[in-house]
Amino acid sequence: MPKVDIESVKQTNRTGYPPPFDSDVAGRWYRRLGKASGLTEIGVSHAVLEPGAMSAQRHWHEGIDEFVVILEGEAVLVEDDWETVMRAGDCAAFPKDVPNGHHLVNRSDRRCVLLAIDSRRGEGDCHYPDVDLHYEAAANRMTHKDGTPYPPQERRSGGGGPLTEE
Amino acid sequence: MPKVDIESVKQTNRTGYPPPFDSDVAGRWYRRLGKASGLTEIGVSHAVLEPGAMSAQRHWHEGIDEFVVILEGEAVLVEDDWETVMRAGDCAAFPKDVPNGHHLVNRSDRRCVLLAIDSRRGEGDCHYPDVDLHYEAAANRMTHKDGTPYPPQERRSGGGGPLTEE
Repeated sequence: MPKVDIESVKQTNRTGYPPPFDSDVAGRWYRRLGKASGLTEIGVSHAVLEPGAMSAQRHWHEGIDEFVVILEGEAVLVEDDWETVMRAGDCAAFPKDVPNGHHLVNRSDRRCVLLAIDSRRGEGDCHYPDVDLHYEAAANRMTHKDGTPYPPQERRSGGGGPLTEE
Repeated sequence: MPKVDIESVKQTNRTGYPPPFDSDVAGRWYRRLGKASGLTEIGVSHAVLEPGAMSAQRHWHEGIDEFVVILEGEAVLVEDDWETVMRAGDCAAFPKDVPNGHHLVNRSDRRCVLLAIDSRRGEGDCHYPDVDLHYEAAANRMTHKDGTPYPPQERRSGGGGPLTEE
């Protein structure tokens, strides 16, 4: 039935980031609602950010639109030159190919719950302005900025959205 | 900036439905956040359903995934053979091509606020099981079930999502 039984969808904090970039998202617990519900054109992740957790390393995507809505608590949206506190009901949109690195950081002392939506058609590299990391879509791998691949991690990132790592 | 200034996005209750099917959505006031924010791959509409209003005539789409999250208040999700009360934080997913007509009806005495997301790539007919209405994507028009076109309305539906009429 179309109503999503959120609790029944497996929750995970896994990531395709190599160390030491994985620890920043250890407190990010997400459920892939779209995939669990049979959606193929859009990705929808339900995420809980524990205090201190990031939604992702700060990044921007080629080829993929992203949209976030806060459902509970608050987080700080960090961009290239700006920070904005986001609270329940607040939304943010990240059109594909706009080179403005962004992520959400929970600097509060309680959990933040959000939905992250992305387009699943189209795929492109992901750029991480703050850290020595690059997602190379053609090879489906994480590399250093100089193109050297990182050793394979437990899970390879699909590069799609802050919470959509396969 | 990526945070969406929701209040600044024009709110409308326009519809491509011909009479008498338009009156059921007169109390549906929506803002096209995705379009206003430069998204092209996914559609995101912020909608307020006044008491008594429907999100759309009950329908299902060929070729278009849909997803809904309730932000405030409650509405009843009506499907072919089921009804479910949806409250703040509840989500529903409608994979493309699944022939289960659905909509949300605000049977409460206060407003319901929701986000409706859909995939913008792919386009197909929209089917309305309860009323003499059909959206014919190839001709971008509303017809009777027998294929006879309705007279053009103020706005033609783009057929995309419960709240994404252009």
